[in-house]
Amino acid sequence: MNAINSAEWRIRMADGSSENLAPESSLVTRMYLSFKRFLKNLILIVRRFLEKSWNIGKNEPRKVIHCLKVGIALSVVSLFYYMRPLYNGVGGTAMWAVMTVVVVFEYTVGATLYKCLNRATGTFCAGFLAIGIHWIANQSGKRFEPIIMGVSIFILASAATFTRFIPAVKARFDYGTMIFILTFTLVSISGYRVANLLNMAHERVSTIIIGASLCVITSILIFPIWAGEELHKLVISNLEKLAESLDCCVAEFFGDSEDTTTNTKKLLAFKCVLNSKASEETMANFARWEPAHGLFNFQHPWGKYLKISASMRSCACCIEALTSCINQKDQASELLKNQLTNPCQQVSSSTSEILKELALNMKTMRKSSRMNMLIQEKNNAIQELETLMEQLSGLLIIQPKNVKDDQEKPVIRTSSTNVIPLVEIIPTATFASLVIEIATRIEGVVDVVEELSKLAKFKLEDADMMIKQNKPVIKNIIN
Amino acid sequence: MNAINSAEWRIRMADGSSENLAPESSLVTRMYLSFKRFLKNLILIVRRFLEKSWNIGKNEPRKVIHCLKVGIALSVVSLFYYMRPLYNGVGGTAMWAVMTVVVVFEYTVGATLYKCLNRATGTFCAGFLAIGIHWIANQSGKRFEPIIMGVSIFILASAATFTRFIPAVKARFDYGTMIFILTFTLVSISGYRVANLLNMAHERVSTIIIGASLCVITSILIFPIWAGEELHKLVISNLEKLAESLDCCVAEFFGDSEDTTTNTKKLLAFKCVLNSKASEETMANFARWEPAHGLFNFQHPWGKYLKISASMRSCACCIEALTSCINQKDQASELLKNQLTNPCQQVSSSTSEILKELALNMKTMRKSSRMNMLIQEKNNAIQELETLMEQLSGLLIIQPKNVKDDQEKPVIRTSSTNVIPLVEIIPTATFASLVIEIATRIEGVVDVVEELSKLAKFKLEDADMMIKQNKPVIKNIIN
Repeated sequence: MNAINSAEWRIRMADGSSENLAPESSLVTRMYLSFKRFLKNLILIVRRFLEKSWNIGKNEPRKVIHCLKVGIALSVVSLFYYMRPLYNGVGGTAMWAVMTVVVVFEYTVGATLYKCLNRATGTFCAGFLAIGIHWIANQSGKRFEPIIMGVSIFILASAATFTRFIPAVKARFDYGTMIFILTFTLVSISGYRVANLLNMAHERVSTIIIGASLCVITSILIFPIWAGEELHKLVISNLEKLAESLDCCVAEFFGDSEDTTTNTKKLLAFKCVLNSKASEETMANFARWEPAHGLFNFQHPWGKYLKISASMRSCACCIEALTSCINQKDQASELLKNQLTNPCQQVSSSTSEILKELALNMKTMRKSSRMNMLIQEKNNAIQELETLMEQLSGLLIIQPKNVKDDQEKPVIRTSSTNVIPLVEIIPTATFASLVIEIATRIEGVVDVVEELSKLAKFKLEDADMMIKQNKPVIKNIIN
Repeated sequence: MNAINSAEWRIRMADGSSENLAPESSLVTRMYLSFKRFLKNLILIVRRFLEKSWNIGKNEPRKVIHCLKVGIALSVVSLFYYMRPLYNGVGGTAMWAVMTVVVVFEYTVGATLYKCLNRATGTFCAGFLAIGIHWIANQSGKRFEPIIMGVSIFILASAATFTRFIPAVKARFDYGTMIFILTFTLVSISGYRVANLLNMAHERVSTIIIGASLCVITSILIFPIWAGEELHKLVISNLEKLAESLDCCVAEFFGDSEDTTTNTKKLLAFKCVLNSKASEETMANFARWEPAHGLFNFQHPWGKYLKISASMRSCACCIEALTSCINQKDQASELLKNQLTNPCQQVSSSTSEILKELALNMKTMRKSSRMNMLIQEKNNAIQELETLMEQLSGLLIIQPKNVKDDQEKPVIRTSSTNVIPLVEIIPTATFASLVIEIATRIEGVVDVVEELSKLAKFKLEDADMMIKQNKPVIKNIIN
């Protein structure tokens, strides 16, 4: 065996194997090879990283613009302080302006404003309180001063940290609370003379204001990215994706879909709806701080967007269950499927029509008068499907459990009836029932969009415009 | 009408109305009343806030402990610097220690370590690079110095900001990148003399290390809260909740549930599974930084927990669809329901048994030998349900569409058959099909837990222990 093995090794070497087993050259060669391998891996990692970055930059050029904005703001603030004659080292005031720009400049205007206002308020409140406590400590003599200071820092830091766990505070003032603790502690330990303190506080506040204003100005004036607008777009695109997924599911189940690769992508578009909760909440939090922009007023009802998304997620869950029916579609009885194809498609297409109309309404910030008609249409389609299913009476043949498969089943055939095992009825029945469920749940989305349109004062689409868009003018709509 | 109105108003006043319309006392009274109302509202808000805080503190005492820990760390670091003789104002080194403690101290050990290590690494890299560039700028003369500095800040800040958009960097080094930009800019604008710079860098790094170590020590030694352990517990409780929800749904549908209030709560427990994605991702990110603790080694496969949760969410989606069947249960045919009750309950109970066993396995970090048997049981139950459904042949009576309701339906009755309209079959059929789907999807969870148990080297439960726990010792398990 050994001889054979060594022979094999020799053959491998003759093949040009990179593993040289000769002991005299092993160390140098091995080191060279491992270095080569390391270099190869490094190049591969760097290349992948660059490719990924390039793709991000290509797909979302606004992210690149944001980076350039940060660069501009930082260069401006540092050059400003670098060239100022009253410059006096990192410990001086320049630092606070730079720090503010780095820490406060965020991707969206809302996030930047949130941080700026929180930072300013936190600093102001903490400074005020700290100077007060400092004065009290000063009055009570050298001996008690460190005790009062230590106890006050302990109590206030603990209490402020605790408030960060309260959801309402966390959503709006998390950063401010942290800055409060920071400033309070810094001012508290900053020595004895109050006069000096006031001077320092004034300097610090003014540099923070300079830094913060620079951030806000850069953020708003150069290609602003509004959290509210992003949220608005995200919800609209999610509405469209939901409609797309639903259409695709129905097409896939009833078998009139052609292209499978793009279809799978469209089919799974609903997953975006399921996964966007966290980012929507963050955006809604930031959007609250934004001034009026584009189509949105200050204090636009952003909270409603979260409700719309919650309703959409409950629909998306049903679509997720729907996809499992598609896997069983080969089991489904063709007969029942043929019977239900049309009404099912009617329900789903009217539902997706409603979703698209909602997306359009939100996009144009107008209330379309078609909505009531579409809902009526959808309800009619549901009614029709349900009536059909009522008419399709199933004759359920219940057999005793111990009847074996090879025994003859008591099957009855007449000219107008077909025997279908329950297992073949189930995929289509489940599918139809889920489609109805989705069509019912859509009303939740419609209701919240309606609430939004009232709060945000969507304009009613006028007849002229509808004629322009080639839509029929509907009169006497039944509610 | 006016006379009657005023009479009414007088009567209201006699009733002790708070709205006094007499013009002579209006201003003072109104001011008093509005002040009173304001005070009342304020007291109400404060009271609610305190109640909320009290509840948070009562339900999660560890949050209170965390707050006290922050208080202790901050008091210690500030007293230390307050009493040091070489103290020299806020601009001095003391500040960095305080700032590090405030910014870096987080709820979990993992988050604290993440921030400490990021802060230290970011500061070190940026300092090193900045001193290098500073030296180059210094060599190139007074005229080019601000240009080189400005350009380098612009390029590095932009590039570093861009890397924060890359998901892998964002998850692990987001904070470090921010600190990198901050330190680089601060060191760049900090004047001309490199000797001074090195001194400053040394001081800053040492104070940051003092602050960071204080945080890490407090965080690990006093009632540590591990992100990994939290994630572990969350996933286990989600597994249990999923089992509970499934059991509850089936009980609710087949009508053997008693208490409705606790039931609704249990029924909707699956919503926790759907909503915990964001917090799980955060925890998994932080858990990576934690050293070995409790049952977990350093670099425990935390990523698998996210996969378990993803599989659980796909099951939870099906349960969400299941709940809609419960609303239609009154429509369902009793006959079919009675037929399917037992096998459906068997499938669901074996599925929830698997979930509970998975939760137990994860809790004890042991691989139970029962799992294969349970999966076999579940598969048998599915098989049984499917066979039953195959045996329940439905005789589908297909009528032409224009047959009206008042016309007699072509119904055939034999002694062993029952006519059930499709619409009454659907709720039960959908329910059964979704239960099977959930039972199938559970395998995804089982597979990932299996992967986790291999990677985390779960011990095999030994026979002695199983006898102790009164479990049957299974031999010759069929795979």
